[in-house]
Amino acid sequence: MKQLVLARRASQIKVELTQRVRKPYKEVIDVSWGDPHKAGVKPLSFVRQVIAACLYPQLLNSDRLPVDVRQRAQSLLKGCDGGSVGSYTATRGISEIVHRVSEFITRRDGGAPSYPENIFISPGSQWALRNILNVLVNSEASHRTGVLTPMPCYSVSLMSIRGLGAVTVPYNLREEQGWELQVEELHRALESAKGVCDPVALYVINPGNPAGYVQSRKSIQEVIQFVSEKRLFLLADEVYQDCVHGENSEFVSYKRVLAEMGPPLSDTVELASFHSASKGFLGECGLRGGYVELVNLDPAVKKYIYKLFSTDACAPVLGQFALDLMMKPPQPGDPSYPLYSVETQHIRTALVHNVKRVLEVVNNLPGFCCQPVKGAFVFPRLHLPPKAIQKAKEMGMQPDAFYCIRLLEEASVIVSPGCDYGQKEGTHHIRFHIMTPEDTMEEVLRRLSSFHTQFMKDFS
Amino acid sequence: MKQLVLARRASQIKVELTQRVRKPYKEVIDVSWGDPHKAGVKPLSFVRQVIAACLYPQLLNSDRLPVDVRQRAQSLLKGCDGGSVGSYTATRGISEIVHRVSEFITRRDGGAPSYPENIFISPGSQWALRNILNVLVNSEASHRTGVLTPMPCYSVSLMSIRGLGAVTVPYNLREEQGWELQVEELHRALESAKGVCDPVALYVINPGNPAGYVQSRKSIQEVIQFVSEKRLFLLADEVYQDCVHGENSEFVSYKRVLAEMGPPLSDTVELASFHSASKGFLGECGLRGGYVELVNLDPAVKKYIYKLFSTDACAPVLGQFALDLMMKPPQPGDPSYPLYSVETQHIRTALVHNVKRVLEVVNNLPGFCCQPVKGAFVFPRLHLPPKAIQKAKEMGMQPDAFYCIRLLEEASVIVSPGCDYGQKEGTHHIRFHIMTPEDTMEEVLRRLSSFHTQFMKDFS
Ligand SMILES: Cc1ncc(COP(=O)(O)O)c(C=O)c1O
Ligand SMILES: Cc1ncc(COP(=O)(O)O)c(C=O)c1O
Repeated sequence: MKQLVLARRASQIKVELTQRVRKPYKEVIDVSWGDPHKAGVKPLSFVRQVIAACLYPQLLNSDRLPVDVRQRAQSLLKGCDGGSVGSYTATRGISEIVHRVSEFITRRDGGAPSYPENIFISPGSQWALRNILNVLVNSEASHRTGVLTPMPCYSVSLMSIRGLGAVTVPYNLREEQGWELQVEELHRALESAKGVCDPVALYVINPGNPAGYVQSRKSIQEVIQFVSEKRLFLLADEVYQDCVHGENSEFVSYKRVLAEMGPPLSDTVELASFHSASKGFLGECGLRGGYVELVNLDPAVKKYIYKLFSTDACAPVLGQFALDLMMKPPQPGDPSYPLYSVETQHIRTALVHNVKRVLEVVNNLPGFCCQPVKGAFVFPRLHLPPKAIQKAKEMGMQPDAFYCIRLLEEASVIVSPGCDYGQKEGTHHIRFHIMTPEDTMEEVLRRLSSFHTQFMKDFS
Repeated sequence: MKQLVLARRASQIKVELTQRVRKPYKEVIDVSWGDPHKAGVKPLSFVRQVIAACLYPQLLNSDRLPVDVRQRAQSLLKGCDGGSVGSYTATRGISEIVHRVSEFITRRDGGAPSYPENIFISPGSQWALRNILNVLVNSEASHRTGVLTPMPCYSVSLMSIRGLGAVTVPYNLREEQGWELQVEELHRALESAKGVCDPVALYVINPGNPAGYVQSRKSIQEVIQFVSEKRLFLLADEVYQDCVHGENSEFVSYKRVLAEMGPPLSDTVELASFHSASKGFLGECGLRGGYVELVNLDPAVKKYIYKLFSTDACAPVLGQFALDLMMKPPQPGDPSYPLYSVETQHIRTALVHNVKRVLEVVNNLPGFCCQPVKGAFVFPRLHLPPKAIQKAKEMGMQPDAFYCIRLLEEASVIVSPGCDYGQKEGTHHIRFHIMTPEDTMEEVLRRLSSFHTQFMKDFS
C-alpha cells in the first residue's frame, strides 16, 4: 500500500512538472519496480522485430527485416490456429513453445530431463504462482494453510498468499551474511507455526527480491533436504535467473539440484518453479509471458491444475512468443546475432557497472550499509536518525516510507521502502532496481547522495 | 471435458492428414470455439498496423503506414512508462485507455455516465469474471454460495464458478421461445436453491452463448427488477455485443437499462458488466484484453477488488491497446477509414449471410431444428434416432458428443456438443460459431449435410 501512496504522489509530481511548479529536477526517475524498460533499458531489436512481423505479416514481404527474423516469425505463426496471433491457444500454451521451454530447461540444467506435459505457460509468472497456491490452500480445513515465506519478500507474492486465505510464516534471511537463507532458520519458522496454521509449502525467491542475493548449490541442497523431511511443497520463484553477475556467483536452478541429488529425493520432492519473460535481457513485463514447471506432482493434481488454467482460456500469444524468443535467441552465424549480441552485452555491462557504483556510493553515505549484491536489486539498510523516526511517527508513517516520500518530493526519484517487503523489527531499508542504463543509475546516485546528505543534516 | 476428447482427436486427425491416411477431406474446420480468427476471419489491418508500430517503433519512421496509424501508435506509446509496451502498467490499466473505455460506454449507453474509477482492464474478460466471483464467493459460510446461471451456459463460466467452490443454480432458457430468459423461471430457480446453497448473484450472457439469443429491453428490465427484489449481484457477460444481426434485434446493455430505470434501482443494484476485444470485429482473442465495469459497488469492496487485480501486475499491454482501438476505431475522414470500413463490412455481410444459410440448411435436415438466431452462435436441437442413442450409451458417451466425434471423424468438422453447456434432460444439441468467412460456412454446411444424412440412415 505504501507503493500506492508513492505512485499517487509520483503522478502528481509529473503533473506539477508539466505545470511548471518549481522542482529541482525535470524528470521523475522510477527505479522502484523490477521493470527494466520503465527504467530506460531498451527492448531487444530481434524480439520486437519478430513479434511485430507476426502481428502484421505484411512485414514479412519486405526485406527490411533480417531473414532469420522473418523465418522465425513464419515458424511461430505456424503454431497459431488460422495463422493469426488473434486466436486462442491450447490451455498450457502453443505446443511448439511448450516444447521449446522444456528444451531450454533441459539445456540449462545440464541435461536433467524436463517434460512438456509438466509445463504451463501463463500471463506472467505471478499468475501461475497464484494458481498453484490456489491448489495448495485448503480453505475448508480447521487450521488455516501456512506458507513459509522469506523475510524480506517480494510484496505481491505475500499479497497473493494472504489473498487466498493462507498465512505467511516468515523465515528471516540473514542480512549480515549477505541475505543468506539458513536452514536452521527454516526449522525455527516451522516450529513457530505450530498451533497457528498448517504449513504446506515453502516459497523461495532465487535470485532474491528485494535483496539481490543468489543461493549456492549447497544452500539449495539443504533447502531440498528440509522440504523433503518436512513434507513441504517447494515453490521456487526463479524469475531473476538471468540477472546474476559478479564473481563466484552462478545461478543454479532448484530443478537441477533436485535432479542431481538423485532418488529418492529426485522422485518425491514436489516442486513448482517459475520463470518469466519479464526480467533478464528481454524485460518484456508488459507482454505478460511466464511459465511454471511442475515436478513430481500427482497426475490427479496436475489434472486439477489443468482445469484451473483452462478457466482463463490461455496466456497472451505475444507473451508466449516472447518466452519462445527468450528460450532460443539468435545463435552465432544468424544474421540477427551481431546486433543481439551487442544489445545484450550492453545491458550486461551496465548491470555490472551499476552494481559496482551503487555499492561504492551507497556504502560511502553515512547511515547506509549495503550487502554485496549478485542479482537485480539492491536493498541497503538505512540507519535513520532518531529525529527522522520521530517525525515519521508523528506523520503516521513507517520511517523508511517517510524517507522514500521525501526522496521523491525533493529529488524526483522513486525507490521503495523496506516496510513493503517485511523486514526485521526495528530495521529500515530501501530497495531499488539496478537493471537500468548506466547514466540513469549515475543520475539516481547523484540525486540520492545529495538528498541523503541533506536529509541526515536536517534530522541530526 | 468433451471438448478435450474432441481436441485430441482433432490433432490426431491433423497428423493423419499430413501422413496421408486416407480421409474424405483435406482440412479440418474448427467452428467449435468463439474464435473468429481460428475460423478464418481476417484481422483488421488498422488494429494490427497500430500495434505492430507500437512494438517496433522504427516502423513509425517509414511512410508505409498511414499517418493516422502512426499518430495513434505514438499517442498510445505516450501512455507507456519508458515509452515501451514492455513496461508494467497501472493495475486497472493504462489510464488513457481506461478513460477511453468509459467514454465508449457513455456513448454506447446514450449518455448514461461511466466513471474510469469503476473500470478494470484485464487479460480477457473471463479473468475479470473470475476475480469478481472470487469476491462474491464466501468459502467460510455454513451454506455454500450459489450463483444463478443460464442453462445452457458457456461452459468455462460454469467451471469458473464451481472452481471457486460455489454452486451453480441453473435457470432454463426457453428454447421454444427462441431461448428467451423468462423471469418466472428465475423465481423457480431461486426457490429450488432453498436449503441447498445461498444464492448471491445472477449471471446472464447477452447476447447468448451457446444459444445466440439477444435480450429485449423489457426482458432486461424484468431481470433488474428481480435482482433488486431478491438482493442479488448482477453479472452481465456482454462480450458478444457487436455480433448482433437481424431485424428487430439490437443490443442494449444492462448498464444502460439500469440507468434509464432511474432511482432507486439505478442507485442500488450492484452490477458488473464484462466486455472484450476477443469478439466482434476485432476477434483478437489471443491478445487477451477485456474489462469489467462495476456499478453501485461499496467503496470498500472496490478497494478489495483493486487488491485482487493487483496480485497479477496488469493486463497485457497489447491487449489493452486492442481494447483502445476497439473503443475508438478510425472515423470517417481518417486515412485508415476506407479500408477499415471495407473490412468490417465484409465481416458483417458474412455474418448475415451465414446465419441465413445455416437456418435454411439445418432446418431442412431431418432431425434438426434451429431457433432463430441473432448472435454469434447457433445451437440447433438434434433429434437423434434411438439406435444412435443406444450406440452412444454402449460407448459410454453422451449422444451429442458421440455425434460430434463422428462428424469430426467422417467430415473433419469440429463443432461442440450440447452436453458441454448443460441442456434440458433428454435434449441434444450441437453448437457452432457462425462468425466465419462465407465460404468456410458453406463448406461446413456441405459437409454437415452429407454427414448428417448418412448418419441418420446408418442409425435408422
Ligand atoms: C520475485 C518475483 N516473482 C514474480 C514476479 C512477477 O513476474 P511476472 O511479470 O512474470 O508476473 C516479480 C515481478 O517483479 C518478482 O519480483
Ligand atoms: C460468454 C463468454 N464470456 C467470456 C468469454 C471469454 O472472453 P475473453 O477472451 O475476453 O476472456 C467467452 C469466450 O468464448 C464467452 O463465450
